[in-house]
Amino acid sequence: MMMLRPALLALALALPAAVAADEPQPVLTMQDVLDQSTPADWRALDPENTLYLELDSGRVVIELAPTFAPRHVANIRTLVRAGYFDGLSINRSQDNFVVQWGDADSGDQEKVRSLGDADGKLPAEFVRAAEGLAFTRLPDVDGWAPEVGFVQGFPAARDPKANAAWLAHCYGAVGAGRDVAADSSKGNELYVVTGQSPRQLDRNITTVGRVVQGMERLSVLPRGTGPLGFYEKPEQRTAIRAIRLASQVPEAERTAIEVFRTDTAAFGKLVESRRNRRDEWYVQPAGHIDLCNVPLPVRAVPAPAPAKP
Amino acid sequence: MMMLRPALLALALALPAAVAADEPQPVLTMQDVLDQSTPADWRALDPENTLYLELDSGRVVIELAPTFAPRHVANIRTLVRAGYFDGLSINRSQDNFVVQWGDADSGDQEKVRSLGDADGKLPAEFVRAAEGLAFTRLPDVDGWAPEVGFVQGFPAARDPKANAAWLAHCYGAVGAGRDVAADSSKGNELYVVTGQSPRQLDRNITTVGRVVQGMERLSVLPRGTGPLGFYEKPEQRTAIRAIRLASQVPEAERTAIEVFRTDTAAFGKLVESRRNRRDEWYVQPAGHIDLCNVPLPVRAVPAPAPAKP
Repeated sequence: MMMLRPALLALALALPAAVAADEPQPVLTMQDVLDQSTPADWRALDPENTLYLELDSGRVVIELAPTFAPRHVANIRTLVRAGYFDGLSINRSQDNFVVQWGDADSGDQEKVRSLGDADGKLPAEFVRAAEGLAFTRLPDVDGWAPEVGFVQGFPAARDPKANAAWLAHCYGAVGAGRDVAADSSKGNELYVVTGQSPRQLDRNITTVGRVVQGMERLSVLPRGTGPLGFYEKPEQRTAIRAIRLASQVPEAERTAIEVFRTDTAAFGKLVESRRNRRDEWYVQPAGHIDLCNVPLPVRAVPAPAPAKP
Repeated sequence: MMMLRPALLALALALPAAVAADEPQPVLTMQDVLDQSTPADWRALDPENTLYLELDSGRVVIELAPTFAPRHVANIRTLVRAGYFDGLSINRSQDNFVVQWGDADSGDQEKVRSLGDADGKLPAEFVRAAEGLAFTRLPDVDGWAPEVGFVQGFPAARDPKANAAWLAHCYGAVGAGRDVAADSSKGNELYVVTGQSPRQLDRNITTVGRVVQGMERLSVLPRGTGPLGFYEKPEQRTAIRAIRLASQVPEAERTAIEVFRTDTAAFGKLVESRRNRRDEWYVQPAGHIDLCNVPLPVRAVPAPAPAKP
């Protein structure tokens, strides 16, 4: 379907309204799965784990993952509450890789912005214990990890033998830039994946969350022409108006969205609807899905049902 | 290394200048492999298989793949020679998926641009025979196909049992948009992959080539807000000044580049340098590489060596 012109969308396979008990179950499209979902298939974001990156072009919503990077997430919260990022900029856009933001003057001891009360030294949080972590495993083979799946809504990977779990660098993943030392990231320099998933970064850098809405505000930023896609001139950078925790923002100004849970039967149906696409456009369903190709739907919070008289 | 600030690039692991015969071979970075490459490791593009997509922002260079889509490539050549694309536009940009161009009036019988002498009907060219096709296979597991590797510089996949080979939908892949009928593409509506590789399209659509230079002119285009990322207003589209075959362009105006061959020992070393990154930044080399993460280097054609006196 994805190549169709909009006018042809109406041709989507019509499903029978009713199916006799002895007939095979109808094949579901992703839209069917979403249409049939119940409120329990969706979850709200925790305002304490939600960042609003405010740009002139609008808001980017990021969900933080304290389960995987507790120290980095705590540091980011401290930095955000102190207004650390406000007035800083997006300094790097490397095609098919990442967009990165932070203090462009971090290398200048006279201009560098103070971390204030935030920690100046954090441990590397590349992996965590897999034990005790609910993991919705995909049956699909993955070359980068023994097992892949989802944890609390995040694409993740697991090595049971090593008792290790980690977040996967899929499109939209947000990580904490570091220098050569593994423990040199502080959460004050962040990047987001904007291309083919660079899974080689898994277990090599601390991943702190993922973008759930507004990726298109970051992915279209002009590519920098300096080494690694850094901008060569200050005026090429994109200004950051502010980064706020949703909990700091009055409720009326929060982005009212819900994300599809990844630990439900409905999610399993959604994955299958993409693993084997059965609409009439596809002549050869793949029979496989890559962890980073699984869609993670977001919806506006439905208006509350009107009170009954 | 990829997360380093440019100032730290100089810290890259220095390799010994000479290695005794009984010492292990030094570990090569991708840059080492490129530095050690010989002219035979590079190839020029065939001007008859090279498209220049000319935008106000500059040129995008596309290599066509007649080995996989002979009829489509022939039709594209006919369309290009007739100036079919000149003055048309990029009509779609869907985040993490594709950018697509063609005739925005294709649904309007009064305004639709004539295909001229090009074929109005082509066979689907989703797969071709694998037999007789030189295939540089990657040993790395892939969930989408029994075997993956490279054919004539293109990421490709193969199913020996079915005697089938096809181009893989990696970042930068160029395909021919179609409607529901498998044989409804004509090469006059083209798309390029701008996100996580949508390998589910493999064997479902005709892939005609890939972008070898200038992806950043397409990947940053504002995302369309209509269904499937189509632009809702004509003024949001990006004008196509022209599409030309390199062979139509005077030699002095051609883009003088070479691409790294994929059928050489040097290419094997390049892949290994990325499969197991040994520079000091990486603490956990992946031991794996995905077909679509393999870099396909491009370089400016070196100036000819000065004639000896």
